[in-house]
Amino acid sequence: MNNLPDNYFVFNSIGIIHSPYKNKAPNQPLVNDQSEFKIILNKKYSEGLKLLNTFTYIYVIYYLDKVIRNNKMVISPPWANQQKVGIFASRSPNRPNPIGISVVKIKKIIDNIIYISGIDAFDGTPLLDVKPYIDKLDAKPDANYGWVEKEDNENHLALHLQGVPHKH
Amino acid sequence: MNNLPDNYFVFNSIGIIHSPYKNKAPNQPLVNDQSEFKIILNKKYSEGLKLLNTFTYIYVIYYLDKVIRNNKMVISPPWANQQKVGIFASRSPNRPNPIGISVVKIKKIIDNIIYISGIDAFDGTPLLDVKPYIDKLDAKPDANYGWVEKEDNENHLALHLQGVPHKH
Repeated sequence: MNNLPDNYFVFNSIGIIHSPYKNKAPNQPLVNDQSEFKIILNKKYSEGLKLLNTFTYIYVIYYLDKVIRNNKMVISPPWANQQKVGIFASRSPNRPNPIGISVVKIKKIIDNIIYISGIDAFDGTPLLDVKPYIDKLDAKPDANYGWVEKEDNENHLALHLQGVPHKH
Repeated sequence: MNNLPDNYFVFNSIGIIHSPYKNKAPNQPLVNDQSEFKIILNKKYSEGLKLLNTFTYIYVIYYLDKVIRNNKMVISPPWANQQKVGIFASRSPNRPNPIGISVVKIKKIIDNIIYISGIDAFDGTPLLDVKPYIDKLDAKPDANYGWVEKEDNENHLALHLQGVPHKH
């Protein structure tokens, strides 16, 4: 691990994300909000959660371990009418560094377990980091939808918002 | 690189972030917005930027290569009146996986270069990923400041918002 080239970096799993999504199947049926989504942090990091419960939202950062990489730079999301978009203009999991980011609500934190709102990550996804989502820093009222605006995106965004893993 | 344990993952730099911040010094003087901040993506990924320019904001995800790790789980930001907070309740760069995330505005994209608004990353920071910041998905109007609300946080948030690297 110390013999990696300069521009390679090693990260390690600091916990596991648990969700109702067990399979790789795309576009799974929507589940209701009562499903349990939680992050089990490795116990050695428990102290690092101190005061995290004072935040409404957090960033969950994870390793997209289910992705089969294809190195495509331009993709065409199945829901987007053949629109071709660059991988960096999409949230597709199939990207050079398969890092996933989701904004979720904290429901409660008990010891090393963070109970959260829906997340579009499969059960067992390795956790890389948790950060507080801070109002002025991260909430941009003038954000837009970019190229997605032109597409029939309602169903697609609903998948993200309800935390349902799906193909892009 | 293929002999890593199961819970370790290798990422590689896909570009470099350029900013006016050359040193490790904390709380550098604020610079005006005219300073140049840009991301130079490795040319082999240029095609992946297709239609990224249709978004107002992007997430920039990077490797915090200047951090000297100390493995502390509870920290006390110098600006926060001795308040002790968990590392995951802070945006401190000194965390188990030193991944930085900033929300920035796109100014323009020319070939493999993304010109952006201020970012609190040092010049030469290795880039891991760029993702579109999507309105309903990422902009949370009911986000809060958590424990930061109780502190004199105005100057500190200003550093983030103007993109000035500093200690937490």
